[in-house]
Amino acid sequence: MFEQNRIYEFGKKIDGDATMRALLGGKGANLAEMARIGLPVPPGFTITTEVCAEFKANGGQLPEYIFDQIEKAIGNVEKQQGKVFGDLENPLLFSVRSGARDSMPGMMDTILNLGLNDQSVQGFARKTDNPRFAYDCYRRFIQMYGDVVMGVQAKDDREEEPFDALLGQLKKEVGIGSDVDLTAEQLKELIKRYKNLIKNFSTREFPQDVYAQLNGAICAVFKSWNNERAVIYRQKYNIPSEWGTAVNVQSMVFGNMGNDCATGVAFTRNPANGEHEFYGEYLINAQGEDVVAGIRTPQPIAALENDMPKVFEQLVGVCRTLEDHFRDMQDFEFTIERGKLYMLQTRNGKRTGLAAVRIAVEMVDEGRISKEDAIKRIPADSISTLLVPVFDENEKKGLKKLAQGLPAGPGAACGKVYFSAKVAEEVYGKGEKVILCRIETSPEDIRGMLTSEGILTSRGGVSSHAALVARQMGKVCVCGAGSLHIDYGSKTIQVGETTIREGDYISIDGTTGEVFEGKVATVPSEVNRVLAGEMEAEKSNTYRLFATVMQWADNFRKLGIRSNADTPKQAKQAFQLGAEGIGLCRTEHMFFEDDRIDFMRRMILSTTTSDRIEALNHLKPLQRGDFEEIFREMRGLPVTIRLLDPPLHEFLPNTEDALMALSEKFGISMEQIRTRVQALHEQNPMLGHRGCRLGMTFPEITTMQATAIFEAVEKVRSEGVDVKVEVMVPLVGFTGEFNVQAALIKAAAEKVMAETEKTFTHMVGTMLELPRAALVADKIAETAEFFSFGTNDLTQTTLGMSRDDSGTFLPDYIAQEVVTRNPFASIDVEGVGQLMEIGVTKARQGRPDVKLGICGEHGGEPDSVKFCHKLGLSYVSCAPNRVPVAKIAAAQAALEKTAP
Amino acid sequence: MFEQNRIYEFGKKIDGDATMRALLGGKGANLAEMARIGLPVPPGFTITTEVCAEFKANGGQLPEYIFDQIEKAIGNVEKQQGKVFGDLENPLLFSVRSGARDSMPGMMDTILNLGLNDQSVQGFARKTDNPRFAYDCYRRFIQMYGDVVMGVQAKDDREEEPFDALLGQLKKEVGIGSDVDLTAEQLKELIKRYKNLIKNFSTREFPQDVYAQLNGAICAVFKSWNNERAVIYRQKYNIPSEWGTAVNVQSMVFGNMGNDCATGVAFTRNPANGEHEFYGEYLINAQGEDVVAGIRTPQPIAALENDMPKVFEQLVGVCRTLEDHFRDMQDFEFTIERGKLYMLQTRNGKRTGLAAVRIAVEMVDEGRISKEDAIKRIPADSISTLLVPVFDENEKKGLKKLAQGLPAGPGAACGKVYFSAKVAEEVYGKGEKVILCRIETSPEDIRGMLTSEGILTSRGGVSSHAALVARQMGKVCVCGAGSLHIDYGSKTIQVGETTIREGDYISIDGTTGEVFEGKVATVPSEVNRVLAGEMEAEKSNTYRLFATVMQWADNFRKLGIRSNADTPKQAKQAFQLGAEGIGLCRTEHMFFEDDRIDFMRRMILSTTTSDRIEALNHLKPLQRGDFEEIFREMRGLPVTIRLLDPPLHEFLPNTEDALMALSEKFGISMEQIRTRVQALHEQNPMLGHRGCRLGMTFPEITTMQATAIFEAVEKVRSEGVDVKVEVMVPLVGFTGEFNVQAALIKAAAEKVMAETEKTFTHMVGTMLELPRAALVADKIAETAEFFSFGTNDLTQTTLGMSRDDSGTFLPDYIAQEVVTRNPFASIDVEGVGQLMEIGVTKARQGRPDVKLGICGEHGGEPDSVKFCHKLGLSYVSCAPNRVPVAKIAAAQAALEKTAP
Repeated sequence: MFEQNRIYEFGKKIDGDATMRALLGGKGANLAEMARIGLPVPPGFTITTEVCAEFKANGGQLPEYIFDQIEKAIGNVEKQQGKVFGDLENPLLFSVRSGARDSMPGMMDTILNLGLNDQSVQGFARKTDNPRFAYDCYRRFIQMYGDVVMGVQAKDDREEEPFDALLGQLKKEVGIGSDVDLTAEQLKELIKRYKNLIKNFSTREFPQDVYAQLNGAICAVFKSWNNERAVIYRQKYNIPSEWGTAVNVQSMVFGNMGNDCATGVAFTRNPANGEHEFYGEYLINAQGEDVVAGIRTPQPIAALENDMPKVFEQLVGVCRTLEDHFRDMQDFEFTIERGKLYMLQTRNGKRTGLAAVRIAVEMVDEGRISKEDAIKRIPADSISTLLVPVFDENEKKGLKKLAQGLPAGPGAACGKVYFSAKVAEEVYGKGEKVILCRIETSPEDIRGMLTSEGILTSRGGVSSHAALVARQMGKVCVCGAGSLHIDYGSKTIQVGETTIREGDYISIDGTTGEVFEGKVATVPSEVNRVLAGEMEAEKSNTYRLFATVMQWADNFRKLGIRSNADTPKQAKQAFQLGAEGIGLCRTEHMFFEDDRIDFMRRMILSTTTSDRIEALNHLKPLQRGDFEEIFREMRGLPVTIRLLDPPLHEFLPNTEDALMALSEKFGISMEQIRTRVQALHEQNPMLGHRGCRLGMTFPEITTMQATAIFEAVEKVRSEGVDVKVEVMVPLVGFTGEFNVQAALIKAAAEKVMAETEKTFTHMVGTMLELPRAALVADKIAETAEFFSFGTNDLTQTTLGMSRDDSGTFLPDYIAQEVVTRNPFASIDVEGVGQLMEIGVTKARQGRPDVKLGICGEHGGEPDSVKFCHKLGLSYVSCAPNRVPVAKIAAAQAALEKTAP
Repeated sequence: MFEQNRIYEFGKKIDGDATMRALLGGKGANLAEMARIGLPVPPGFTITTEVCAEFKANGGQLPEYIFDQIEKAIGNVEKQQGKVFGDLENPLLFSVRSGARDSMPGMMDTILNLGLNDQSVQGFARKTDNPRFAYDCYRRFIQMYGDVVMGVQAKDDREEEPFDALLGQLKKEVGIGSDVDLTAEQLKELIKRYKNLIKNFSTREFPQDVYAQLNGAICAVFKSWNNERAVIYRQKYNIPSEWGTAVNVQSMVFGNMGNDCATGVAFTRNPANGEHEFYGEYLINAQGEDVVAGIRTPQPIAALENDMPKVFEQLVGVCRTLEDHFRDMQDFEFTIERGKLYMLQTRNGKRTGLAAVRIAVEMVDEGRISKEDAIKRIPADSISTLLVPVFDENEKKGLKKLAQGLPAGPGAACGKVYFSAKVAEEVYGKGEKVILCRIETSPEDIRGMLTSEGILTSRGGVSSHAALVARQMGKVCVCGAGSLHIDYGSKTIQVGETTIREGDYISIDGTTGEVFEGKVATVPSEVNRVLAGEMEAEKSNTYRLFATVMQWADNFRKLGIRSNADTPKQAKQAFQLGAEGIGLCRTEHMFFEDDRIDFMRRMILSTTTSDRIEALNHLKPLQRGDFEEIFREMRGLPVTIRLLDPPLHEFLPNTEDALMALSEKFGISMEQIRTRVQALHEQNPMLGHRGCRLGMTFPEITTMQATAIFEAVEKVRSEGVDVKVEVMVPLVGFTGEFNVQAALIKAAAEKVMAETEKTFTHMVGTMLELPRAALVADKIAETAEFFSFGTNDLTQTTLGMSRDDSGTFLPDYIAQEVVTRNPFASIDVEGVGQLMEIGVTKARQGRPDVKLGICGEHGGEPDSVKFCHKLGLSYVSCAPNRVPVAKIAAAQAALEKTAP
């Protein structure tokens, strides 16, 4: 039977290239590409992602036919390297690494130095004339293989890894501090102990056959595609599980052969703040995992200029070559073996939001990429990192600075100290803000890192696991703060005389690397200070980046961007952040303020229409005043005001005392109040007496609100400020509901016009937030002038799922991949989206020029914004601070659409 | 400007016919038709329903152009009758009556004797040589006009009508008992008092101009289309408000000129039980309203054979003519003026459910109509009147019979006595069962009648208001029980020595006319006794009717009819009533029985999977036993079993005591129980952790239920009884949910097959009860073998309306005609129906031969059944006692479809 080729070589013969990420994974494709452009890549081959699927379908075994292909590829590498895999005298060693389409750093497994056994290590020692090196390689191999393939691991993160424990114990026995000082004989002893550990732990022997080793390693990598941390990572980044990983088998080069050897990780620009500088770190006489794992704190890359000036210069050239070729910031791994540079990997570098924005803008300045590319490349969410609050510099001065670490994830974070990822996750569940403090982090910590405000480590550099994950997740991170003595046993941080205990507050500044005791107050970001006129635009480079990106986005996007704003303050913020109007002003929020709530309660407790009207008359001028302020802030931009929406019982107090106070204030008997409270109780308030149903049973509420709106319109217009008001009826399901409510609103407008002897225009429309409304939008559109999708409620009703109650089962659904994302965070395109399409089509049937928007919380989520663009909506409306995010997402959607 | 003709005459010239109901109303169309077939109809004309709409649009005024048309038509009548409208010597008098497309008896207003005034009444007295008669006509006219046009009415039903009060007072003053004994002079005095009453009450004079009288009367009739009782009536019978009423203006004939005069109402068959007999009643020397209003209790029609033998014979002929012509039972009004018969109205007679069935079957026997016509003509709901329980004859013997009245609405009703319709409505709201006791009823009582179990009157015959409304609404009614002395003041019924007070229980048998003190127990109907084998089929004519109609329906219908049944008992009933399978067996109901609930609670309180499995192991044999019984009852017909659906907290007790008992029984601390109860609490349980979401988080529940089902299948099959089982997963919204649950179910089936070494077939499907499920039915159908629409939940989610909470606003919606019917009773075709259509189309895309059913409560509602037929569903499933109703509705739907 003919079998498709599943192996792609790189070396003298190059089968792949950078475009083949889906098949070869990012690492394999880029190894081939680097070889093509003449960079020094040790030869090897890539097993395709197709085999990952076959492996799974095959019950966790490699398909038989692949072994011949592997043998053939090994033969080709052997020829190029002049070594033989498994040879006793001159053994060829391999690294075996994962490589998915999108890089998932640290999530999957790697094996180095594969091909050594008890015999060949002796030949290797003779051949390299370096027994210490040879036995170090062998013990590293056994350690990694034992961990990854044979499952010799600590049970939880409070226990030391068993191999590390043996290594530490030996160092103690022989009285040395650093791994590199171990002699060959000591390493031999360590190897013996490692092999015993494996045998005791797994009841199997460490394999001596090199092909068995290779088979085990390849299987382990494929299997690691479905390990817990990889699955969690994929969920967070929406990577489909069917993509699978490729496996890269590459001949080893050695950074640990002596002091003319090194290994490092570097970036063509600074991934934390985006600065255009050669950035990274390296370790002399080490292998790659030493850098990433953060076991020894590496040297900053600049120091290499002294240690190995020629190689440093060569690396600077490599940076240029890579950026010229890949047109993006690269994150690459290299090894220096006896003064010779080898490239082991390159990829587009993960970066913080701030860095993403800065690199994109500066690459446009440099002429490397177009504005379109820049916008496409900035993750929409990343712009919000320019808007998050920063620590107040004045406050910092008054507080005790505990330590200085590396600024690995910019931003300000403040929380209680916890030392275990698991505990961090638990206390987060109880609503606490956590700073996760670890000596170093490992992939097992990922859940705890996700739930922390910030991450602090005492060991590891800017490419350590902690830094890397923090950058990618947008978490605040300070790493390698070496003066902190973190003790998991006593759950303390000791620094000089100071002891910080579990649960104490600390504050970390990921932009500067500073660590403070206690809570530091925050102030608005530079961008916000410029927007508020509190800082000159010229003084802020961050503002320049922000404004540039916003201008590009505004040029490209087709979708309007409005903001949800309930108060004059929010309206002001929305205006400053570039919102083109208010898409949702919730009037009920006004009722909760100050003593308004009491009049609201008086209204609710009324049993007659006249009592209700009297209470409403107290509320009207207060509402009108708010509306006036909002209109003034928006300076003629459209403002959509939604009439009262929540069920009335939400306004009533819960406690007996508060009810008593109400009873006294308004002279209503407790008996009467209790009866009313009882009558208002509902089984399913979400589906109850709310939205326009209130205006249907109490038309006087609609009339009061509409009158307050129109009186405010008239007042603000009389001041010379234009007003565009759109009155929105909530929770309409039936045409008749809308017609009745619209008639009340229009009557109020006419009354105000008659009284003021002025005319003004206004629009009356409704939410599309019930399936029925979407289905009959054609009929509603005969009278409604605009629609706004309320995707929060539409999701709840379409899925029959209460957002408040879904916490008991939705996490299970996400874990089981029944839903790929939380439908309350990102629009469920297949279900809710389909109903939205029906709504759009129908609404246009009823009124071809109907204005369509969205004002659910999805309006600020990039994928949902893109979906709204596809639907052809007029605008999305989101929280003020999500306006810039929505603008970028809208621009990206427009650019995607115009792509050929 | 040319104006369309809006007047259709009947008399010598006949403009209309029976087909023109929409334009002329039923009364106008049939007056024209009767004239066409040579029956004696006094000449007149009909103002079309179009004018009703114009009248409303015109702000409650007649359009100007109509007056010329009216004058012309009056001229034509004047010529035929040789009298002149408004003439002082020989005045032509008119009746003015409403007439809608579907008759709405008693709901709208009527004026008789119009055209009299202070002058012409003198001429009329001279011309008829009967001053007493003339002044009686005039006082009647003033009374009706004052009431209907000028609004002189009692404020509520506890007050006497003001005209009646004056009449009663005068009779007392002059010491006479009956109206007919009043002299002309006394009537003149009464007229004076009537006119004063009007002036004082309405501050306007009674109009003397006859055209002003006519205008007022026509307007009043049009206006009465929107009076409260007409609106309520239309809601109950789904008559669109835009149909409007026509107005019939007809020359008066007089049943009150003396003892050779009479007026009556008759039916060509008995409308209460359907018997083929001439049925009805009349009053000598009276006008029509005296019969209908029940003021004097009329004579049964048979007595007319003695009083006026020739006219009686003529009427018997009229019956035959009418039935031959109209091919349906007719309800007609006649007046005899000086020995000459006039026909004033005919229409298809309203009838009880029992009568509808009997008349339809017997008309087929007589060869008058086809089986198809018979099925079309039987309101589907009416078949259920053959199934309602009847009083136990043995119990009757032991109780005190209070009185014998006329059997006006068949059936057995038992409840507390109330004397006011308003009070009846109020106590009904509090959950009481009411027997409404009135001397006589009037249209104002309609709401109270709707909410009563039964209606009892002491006055009025079989065509009185009470009888007529009861027949139409299917209410139990005994009328004219003259030995009861009903006193509204003291709220008592006095009969002999016995006093029944408000709130006491009485029982009325509407089939026999008997009234009993206290509660009489009921037994199953004859049909049910035959079906249960407790009575011989040959002995029951009702059973013959039932079986005949069911056989016809089975022949015509295309839709399968299944039943919802949760217990073996219900399954047995469903089988007896002809269900073709079980469409919904709710497994949770089994958990509430006996001590099963405790194991269920134990399961819910478990915090570990193993505890849960242990509790489930206790439940499994109990479930299996129920399933076995149900399979045996259904004898190989398909049985759809739905897995656990409600949220778990529904199974927990509410009281502290019950929780303590649980705590003791299972040795779980109260602390732990409270924590669990707290954790299970939900904001919106309808949208919470229920349905398949339970099986997703607790797969062991699904496995237990599926295993119990399949073990039962195997057991019953081993007894030689065939079993067709369909396992149904509830509340699916996502394809993944169904796939996971279906895999668990199939694994359970395979395990049982492996254990028993037998094979059996089964189907696995799901409910379509969430909008999302309908939208992605194509994808779900790739694995689901059948679907069943759960229209209860689908309505709740599509409308965003909780059935439990909609009581606070839905009545307002129905009143304001925002919804035409309660969407939880009859499918909301525009919204929910549209989603069902999408679901059907998609499901067939995914699986062309997919089986589709419905198992919501709508499955037994005739219009919903018809909609399901249109959708092409395979079956509907409803409560056992609705199976016959669904069969008729399904047959009607099939016949509608095949109509040309």
